[in-house]
Amino acid sequence: MTQATTHPTLTTWHDLVQTRNTKGLKDLLADDVVFYSPVVHTPQAGKAVTAQYLSAAFNVFFNETFRYVREVTGPGDAVLEFQVDIDGIAVNGVDMIKWNDEGKIVEFKVMLRPLKAINLIHQKMGAMLEATR
Amino acid sequence: MTQATTHPTLTTWHDLVQTRNTKGLKDLLADDVVFYSPVVHTPQAGKAVTAQYLSAAFNVFFNETFRYVREVTGPGDAVLEFQVDIDGIAVNGVDMIKWNDEGKIVEFKVMLRPLKAINLIHQKMGAMLEATR
Repeated sequence: MTQATTHPTLTTWHDLVQTRNTKGLKDLLADDVVFYSPVVHTPQAGKAVTAQYLSAAFNVFFNETFRYVREVTGPGDAVLEFQVDIDGIAVNGVDMIKWNDEGKIVEFKVMLRPLKAINLIHQKMGAMLEATR
Repeated sequence: MTQATTHPTLTTWHDLVQTRNTKGLKDLLADDVVFYSPVVHTPQAGKAVTAQYLSAAFNVFFNETFRYVREVTGPGDAVLEFQVDIDGIAVNGVDMIKWNDEGKIVEFKVMLRPLKAINLIHQKMGAMLEATR
């Protein structure tokens, strides 16, 4: 459930998602942001690599069935649960977002379920990251 | 980060985890609770099957390295992020818990990362559920 007053960082994030605006990502990310992939253990550090992952994710995830279904928010972070059908497979996941005092995102972590969805996203994100390299 | 006042449902949950008390689970679960596995798409409905899954999870997850590392809480639900090493593999996940007005858990969803961890848990949970059947 969205809280009465949404943090500006989340408002901007939702705007970018709604408009599929990958170019706006860099203004929202801190220089030292760290991205945690649902597939790989090793954290991806820095704005460039995080923007690259998120841009690829915009392409893979944001079809017309994508919707956020739950939002749990703390003072400095939020968990956004989503649901999307990709190639006929129901993908359920969370975007776990932490921001700093300036409202810039310092950590972005994604988890997915079920196993079938993770295998699908693994394959699709790999192909997308290859294509944009 | 734990909030200043923790909801009684979460206090009880943490007590059960701390004491590895699977017997106390049933008092905390609503009759119509639904469990969403990190591995399988199909929801598992009802107190008996949910208690069975959670009891198996207590055995698989709660070794001495298990710790909750983040807690984001709303009025009726919470997301608890955890970290645990199992067989030398770093398992990162979330317990997504929803409760009703009586404080009984009505939904329990688990997501895990990375892929290696999900494959490990898939195998271990399967073996544990077989053993307790």
